[in-house]
Amino acid sequence: MTERREVAIVGGATVKFGVRDSTWAELAQEVGGALFHAVPSLRSESVDSLFVGAAEPERFAFQSHVAPLAAEQMGLTPHKVVQRTELACASGQSAIRSAYAAIASGLSDVAVAVGVEKMNIPSMAEANTSMACVMDRPWDGAHGATAPPFFAMVAQRHMLEFGTTEDALAAVSEKNHRFANSNPHAQFYEKTFDRAKLARMPLIAPPLRLGDCSSMTDGAAAVVLTSADRVAPFTDTPAWVRGSGQSSDFHNLANAGSLTDWVGMRHAAREAFASAGIGPKDLDLAELHDCFSISEIVEYEALGLCASGEGGRFALEGRSDRGGDLVVNTRGGLLGCGHPLGATGVAQAVEVFDQLAGRAPAARQVPDAHWALVHNLSGSANVHSIMIYEGAA
Amino acid sequence: MTERREVAIVGGATVKFGVRDSTWAELAQEVGGALFHAVPSLRSESVDSLFVGAAEPERFAFQSHVAPLAAEQMGLTPHKVVQRTELACASGQSAIRSAYAAIASGLSDVAVAVGVEKMNIPSMAEANTSMACVMDRPWDGAHGATAPPFFAMVAQRHMLEFGTTEDALAAVSEKNHRFANSNPHAQFYEKTFDRAKLARMPLIAPPLRLGDCSSMTDGAAAVVLTSADRVAPFTDTPAWVRGSGQSSDFHNLANAGSLTDWVGMRHAAREAFASAGIGPKDLDLAELHDCFSISEIVEYEALGLCASGEGGRFALEGRSDRGGDLVVNTRGGLLGCGHPLGATGVAQAVEVFDQLAGRAPAARQVPDAHWALVHNLSGSANVHSIMIYEGAA
Repeated sequence: MTERREVAIVGGATVKFGVRDSTWAELAQEVGGALFHAVPSLRSESVDSLFVGAAEPERFAFQSHVAPLAAEQMGLTPHKVVQRTELACASGQSAIRSAYAAIASGLSDVAVAVGVEKMNIPSMAEANTSMACVMDRPWDGAHGATAPPFFAMVAQRHMLEFGTTEDALAAVSEKNHRFANSNPHAQFYEKTFDRAKLARMPLIAPPLRLGDCSSMTDGAAAVVLTSADRVAPFTDTPAWVRGSGQSSDFHNLANAGSLTDWVGMRHAAREAFASAGIGPKDLDLAELHDCFSISEIVEYEALGLCASGEGGRFALEGRSDRGGDLVVNTRGGLLGCGHPLGATGVAQAVEVFDQLAGRAPAARQVPDAHWALVHNLSGSANVHSIMIYEGAA
Repeated sequence: MTERREVAIVGGATVKFGVRDSTWAELAQEVGGALFHAVPSLRSESVDSLFVGAAEPERFAFQSHVAPLAAEQMGLTPHKVVQRTELACASGQSAIRSAYAAIASGLSDVAVAVGVEKMNIPSMAEANTSMACVMDRPWDGAHGATAPPFFAMVAQRHMLEFGTTEDALAAVSEKNHRFANSNPHAQFYEKTFDRAKLARMPLIAPPLRLGDCSSMTDGAAAVVLTSADRVAPFTDTPAWVRGSGQSSDFHNLANAGSLTDWVGMRHAAREAFASAGIGPKDLDLAELHDCFSISEIVEYEALGLCASGEGGRFALEGRSDRGGDLVVNTRGGLLGCGHPLGATGVAQAVEVFDQLAGRAPAARQVPDAHWALVHNLSGSANVHSIMIYEGAA
């Protein structure tokens, strides 16, 4: 037996998120170029493995078997491991977790994890219909329980049980959109979303307004991972993978438990914190999956940042903002950056890498950032995925 | 650092392959039941991770996010790792490789890898169109280079370069269909395909006839993997994962090299043999990806079982049959079993587990089987995936 190896992210890059005039393949090519630019010591021939996070290229781009397509577009010829990972909205993080496991187990030495999603297509009716098959299609998706209605039900229930207000939802959205103004790659860079403006936005699924919902976005992001003995040529500020947890509770909504207490996220968090050997209070920043503003509120609670039902107040009191208990979604979150499904989890990791290296823009750099957590949910919050990173300093 | 752990398959099961009157979810449920029946000491609560191999459920079943769907249908609630892996025709093997890496790295202790594919749907035109997006869709798939025409080009070129005959193709098909007669789960169980009959079958893409082509098949298969210290309660005949290799050469056919020398397979095989510490001559059986009869012929050569160009003669001389150099595709191969994309790689592993345990039906049991290789290709043979297993004896 050989030793299990420590693994770190040693570089990363994203493309501009938004409604892009690029195909899936072009987004992969662009992020490949950005990655080689961001990691000058990266050589194509040293990348032995490729993990591609993509949720629905078969529908959005009518292209399956995207792992070799991404390899070709990025100029890579992996010869140890090559695969796509799919976990709907958490597909990107799944690619990183798979790369971690491949390196830790010795299957791979230097891996690229890339997330790509093309969601804006000529027929947005087709795109929206395709989103319905992320849920249990014959039972939930077909009967209207797609993402906005599902999370609207979560919000309504949270309001009923705990008195959470629309103003609390707006507090999350305002914060994340504000952070996005420090991120030129965010879809809503240089857009203003103050609470007054948010309150005037059209209702999508009551009580959720347009500003409470992340967008159908095109985007791509990539990171390089390697083992401890190979980190040095790449960077002196690696982000070490220290913890991991995932949980799948149910699929059909009829089998769901509480709408407002995400037990699966508690399980995933417990596993991730236990494997990292830290607790929530040790974190310096967190990337939480704010597909909707209400999601981030429920996630504060499931992560143990506050008691059940207090997530709305946690947001209103600025405890997830700069200077608060734990700053959340400094890159702008899914609300501010848009949510290209497979790219999101990888872009969050790029932000963590920059933050732990002290290289984030001043408007959002967390002082002395050392521990970071990334969370993604997928589907009807039935699966939760968490990774924990430690900085080098 | 902890030690990297040795990993074994400790049990497996398949459902009946064929044109099934079952949905994707029902196939997952059925194979879950079969798995718990085949592995009596398996407990739902001890399965901490689930890896789902599926190629195109978004198109064939209009269902994405299939990992939690499979979990629910199989009665599992994974709390460490849960994901789908996609690599077109090699999606099943990718699930097993991911499970291996998760266990070897310490992320998981007991994992299920399941492959499920539902291909026979009301509109077979839609199903066939969906198959085109496994290739480079805008360039190759849309212009007719789907699987049968592509592999027909390989066959034509092999005939031109090496004088390979239609009789050699038929020798592969006859052998694999004959083995399928020992496998009640094969699609073509109890069907006769002698060479005279094969020669009368309709041409699909010249020179490939119906009997040279694997089918659009519904099916599912599942295996349990665990670490060395946890094997004992499950079985005293584990199949140890000893080697792994994968290679991605190109995507667009314009970037392909030789049609008849699959360099990517040579790379994957080199990596797999090196990691296992054995060579081709050490193998006792091989499961090779006979999506078309010509594929198996080219694979003999790329695996080093015979010289380039001699694959046809290798088949005609019975050197891949019982009593030959290396018996290939004892369960009946893709030709005899059908090819439910995501299920195939897992079903091959089930056959290897049974063979290495000496538990295969007498008509196909390889005497003293100790080393086995499983190969899958995907797309236009642009990606090759190989794993090597060692028996306990």
